[in-house]
Amino acid sequence: MTDLQAILDGIYTELSPRIGEGKVADYIPELAKVDPKQFGMTIATVNGEVHSVGDAGIAFSIQSISKVFMLTLALGKIGESLWKRVGREPSGTSFNSIVQLEREEGIPRNPFINAGAIAVSDVVLSGHAPREAIGELLRFVRYVADDESITIDDRVARSETQTGFRNFALANFMRAYGNLDHPVEHVLGVYFHQCALSMSCQQLAKAGLYLAARGSNPITGHSVVSPKRARRINALMLTCGHYDGSGDFAYHVGLPGKSGVGGGILAVAPGIGSIAVWSPGLNKVGNSQLGAVALEMLAARTGWSVFGD
Amino acid sequence: MTDLQAILDGIYTELSPRIGEGKVADYIPELAKVDPKQFGMTIATVNGEVHSVGDAGIAFSIQSISKVFMLTLALGKIGESLWKRVGREPSGTSFNSIVQLEREEGIPRNPFINAGAIAVSDVVLSGHAPREAIGELLRFVRYVADDESITIDDRVARSETQTGFRNFALANFMRAYGNLDHPVEHVLGVYFHQCALSMSCQQLAKAGLYLAARGSNPITGHSVVSPKRARRINALMLTCGHYDGSGDFAYHVGLPGKSGVGGGILAVAPGIGSIAVWSPGLNKVGNSQLGAVALEMLAARTGWSVFGD
Amino acid sequence: MTDLQAILDGIYTELSPRIGEGKVADYIPELAKVDPKQFGMTIATVNGEVHSVGDAGIAFSIQSISKVFMLTLALGKIGESLWKRVGREPSGTSFNSIVQLEREEGIPRNPFINAGAIAVSDVVLSGHAPREAIGELLRFVRYVADDESITIDDRVARSETQTGFRNFALANFMRAYGNLDHPVEHVLGVYFHQCALSMSCQQLAKAGLYLAARGSNPITGHSVVSPKRARRINALMLTCGHYDGSGDFAYHVGLPGKSGVGGGILAVAPGIGSIAVWSPGLNKVGNSQLGAVALEMLAARTGWSVFGD
Amino acid sequence: MTDLQAILDGIYTELSPRIGEGKVADYIPELAKVDPKQFGMTIATVNGEVHSVGDAGIAFSIQSISKVFMLTLALGKIGESLWKRVGREPSGTSFNSIVQLEREEGIPRNPFINAGAIAVSDVVLSGHAPREAIGELLRFVRYVADDESITIDDRVARSETQTGFRNFALANFMRAYGNLDHPVEHVLGVYFHQCALSMSCQQLAKAGLYLAARGSNPITGHSVVSPKRARRINALMLTCGHYDGSGDFAYHVGLPGKSGVGGGILAVAPGIGSIAVWSPGLNKVGNSQLGAVALEMLAARTGWSVFGD
Repeated sequence: MTDLQAILDGIYTELSPRIGEGKVADYIPELAKVDPKQFGMTIATVNGEVHSVGDAGIAFSIQSISKVFMLTLALGKIGESLWKRVGREPSGTSFNSIVQLEREEGIPRNPFINAGAIAVSDVVLSGHAPREAIGELLRFVRYVADDESITIDDRVARSETQTGFRNFALANFMRAYGNLDHPVEHVLGVYFHQCALSMSCQQLAKAGLYLAARGSNPITGHSVVSPKRARRINALMLTCGHYDGSGDFAYHVGLPGKSGVGGGILAVAPGIGSIAVWSPGLNKVGNSQLGAVALEMLAARTGWSVFGD
Repeated sequence: MTDLQAILDGIYTELSPRIGEGKVADYIPELAKVDPKQFGMTIATVNGEVHSVGDAGIAFSIQSISKVFMLTLALGKIGESLWKRVGREPSGTSFNSIVQLEREEGIPRNPFINAGAIAVSDVVLSGHAPREAIGELLRFVRYVADDESITIDDRVARSETQTGFRNFALANFMRAYGNLDHPVEHVLGVYFHQCALSMSCQQLAKAGLYLAARGSNPITGHSVVSPKRARRINALMLTCGHYDGSGDFAYHVGLPGKSGVGGGILAVAPGIGSIAVWSPGLNKVGNSQLGAVALEMLAARTGWSVFGD
Repeated sequence: MTDLQAILDGIYTELSPRIGEGKVADYIPELAKVDPKQFGMTIATVNGEVHSVGDAGIAFSIQSISKVFMLTLALGKIGESLWKRVGREPSGTSFNSIVQLEREEGIPRNPFINAGAIAVSDVVLSGHAPREAIGELLRFVRYVADDESITIDDRVARSETQTGFRNFALANFMRAYGNLDHPVEHVLGVYFHQCALSMSCQQLAKAGLYLAARGSNPITGHSVVSPKRARRINALMLTCGHYDGSGDFAYHVGLPGKSGVGGGILAVAPGIGSIAVWSPGLNKVGNSQLGAVALEMLAARTGWSVFGD
Repeated sequence: MTDLQAILDGIYTELSPRIGEGKVADYIPELAKVDPKQFGMTIATVNGEVHSVGDAGIAFSIQSISKVFMLTLALGKIGESLWKRVGREPSGTSFNSIVQLEREEGIPRNPFINAGAIAVSDVVLSGHAPREAIGELLRFVRYVADDESITIDDRVARSETQTGFRNFALANFMRAYGNLDHPVEHVLGVYFHQCALSMSCQQLAKAGLYLAARGSNPITGHSVVSPKRARRINALMLTCGHYDGSGDFAYHVGLPGKSGVGGGILAVAPGIGSIAVWSPGLNKVGNSQLGAVALEMLAARTGWSVFGD
């Protein structure tokens, strides 16, 4: 596919002067240290091709992108009964808002805002010690990415544990409403470690491929979820994957996607491929500024938008 | 396409015992009079085929579905500058909530909640008397549906004018923030009349076809919007088209759609076709109960979900 | 009482250099025209003495202070059943917020925020044409002040009618919840006229004297309300009389009081007297800046705080 | 004062058939065990008289009433700069709401809602180990009550520590906004122990006497605060002392007061005396149901309302 490689190269060339734009997340001390002048992008297609550009081989903190993998695990564990614990609607508020939790009695609006992901962590933790649950996630991500070298960055996890007061507030609030089964410290232990997953664009694009390919990794042949479940996770990514910028992302890019404050975005072109992009500078709603621009350019040039070509 | 007709017939047969489910909207007196035991559905494909079942020929009050047509008109009139007047994010609150307006200083979250549609009406009204703006909308809908028999039900419009206090509140509130250029009575005159558009599933499916066909009606050849704009309107329908049930609709159906409290839903399968369904009984978030079920069945049986087959 | 006159004179002398501080209300065009460099103050005691200083004889728009008189009228009309229509709790939000109304289904938190006063206007309007209700209020105020020269400033009333979109929003919102019995235009007609009452400090202090004197005007001997009702109105003034600055006013001044955006404040020292102060410049929460300071000085020098000497 | 004793006896006789009304707080397991059929009341006057009735000698968990004493300590420690950490306005929401904290960026509305009291605990904790801060409070309460037998009920403190997830949420949320200087566990250690103070009506009425007597205990002659500060604490009790029922309490009783979910209320009649009442059953907003009724009867029969006789 010289085409796709050419498109990636073109995007990279055009964006080069802007690399460094946006504001690196500073509320997690370890993330604040990241050099903003980095940009990488990888496309993995359902046909098994992989195209990359820029810093696509450098591992970064995937942060909230991990919520996609945790959601997959939780659905695998308890199926649709998950939706008694967390909703499926966009929140209309920022990713770490607690207002909605009070209004809706401890049920987070969706699994991609912090509160929702904490509830999902509680589900994955069930029957496990925290260390085992983290191990299960790591094995899962290595399995879907077909890459045993993926790790969790303990310094990032520790950094979040020490400063994540707002997440402690969210977890305790849900606990007060009976929407956590495990001790807050255990649940957040899992939560902070999942956010600290360290992956490159190349690894991430491959890890997300099952969502583009009817639930199975077309490279390894591994079945991960049913086609129906893959569709549904994509739907959630489209409506809720970019916090309070989800509508905007759908409007400009038109692909299911999930962003992280580490500057990464995982996007899915159903039936076509999976795209990972990374650039640490964030826009006002906390999504990678250049990452979103790059995906908009990609969608425009490929006609991959789910909303029409 | 005997296939599509067979699928429609199958859906109708299966749903027949449930026709009448849900609760007819009662806050607009004229709508409360509608017989709940009705169900119709039409598919219009980009290839020019039209398939219907049940009460697809009976006109009903399309209500908020008209917001799609008004948005198209407003974008045609002032382009992307529309987004200074209204946002593009899901609201996270009910369709007629005023809380968000106060928090975000008179800028509605999206063009499909009531406040947003009122702002859009204000834009369409620009340079017109209210009667002319209503005329422009009617001409537009007749044009996209290629059907001169479409009308506005004055009794419904009058009924809403007399009881629509909440909409008066929303409009006055935006006026207070300087986000309405015209007198509240004029803007709501346009708004209430657009909601009172009376169309059958057959008319509505044809009217929405341009959104499935890169912006042009493939039957008449009429160009309505650019392909890019069609995609964007579809994106807004997917993220915001079902009020606070948009995430749920995306999860179960996977198609851009817009519902109305008259019990209609217009859905779009990009590149494939446009679907209108009508059944007056509403579910808890105000969307047609059987309409949503029928579309979920259709998407499952056709593989038309934008999130994968 | 040379004492009280000396205290007033002392306050005036000390505040003279600051006269003009604060920001004149500008959202009502007629009020924006008022010269900020004015200050007047009057004390009327239950013993019949009246002491004034500065511009105490100049009439100003009493605005929300009128809500005390309207509340008195409404309680006289329907008694404690008024509290089915409006609450008795501080709002925790700004005077014209609509958020609380949605959360609490159309029941305003107290009779001194705008929404609450509009509900009270609706009660006073009952059985009347708007013009008659306004006449009733004017007669009542003239009666309690024992002054037939008090008038309503029609230009102010008109100015508010033309720009009071937020009040139209509040009224329509309550109407939607069934908490207004009369047409919005009629209710707001009464509301805007009550706010346009034009009174001097001298008139206002006398008008409020019944609240300090167990419900009767000690000068005229006219009985207005029972001692119990006078206490209760005072309680409402203390907890809710300064919008979202009520706690601060109680903390610094310690007297029941009601402010208006015209820059006036009516305060009550139970068993002792009634105080009116006026200075057009407002502080951040919309209360007269120097008025509040003057009352704090007065309370400190007289020991009149209800919270101890 | 045979009068006051007779009034107390009369109230007790009248209320006897209703003792047991209301609902004992059940969210703290230890409190849920308390026998609801108890009622006690004590008046301590500035003249040194003490009158009691019913179970006035039985110690109960004073819970939030302790916030008055902690506020006194914190003001003594850092003076008016306390108001940078916490506001002075009624909240308009329930005592444990977190919504306001998000809207107002971690600054609680007043020192008597949970969040505010936690901030006050953080201030009192300054320069101390938690154990020392708790010791300081206990010494202070024993000093103002002139009673060395007052204790803290460790079982109650432990019970709250184990179930107080909402308070953990509030504290972590403030910490996230930089409005706590100490570790959450330390601050809540202090907070939960202050709430677990165990006092009888007799002890509590004496402890509150300084607020009625210009800041000094007239029995012991001990000076506690300045007259001005006593007034100001009274003002805060009146506007904010009964959570979202403060307006109602002012309306019906007309005295500064502070309630606790243990069923106690401390009320202050400035210049006259201090009243403690206890009955475990709570009304809908979380204040002692019979306690409030008893105080309304007392105020009516004595003319002690600060809003007039």
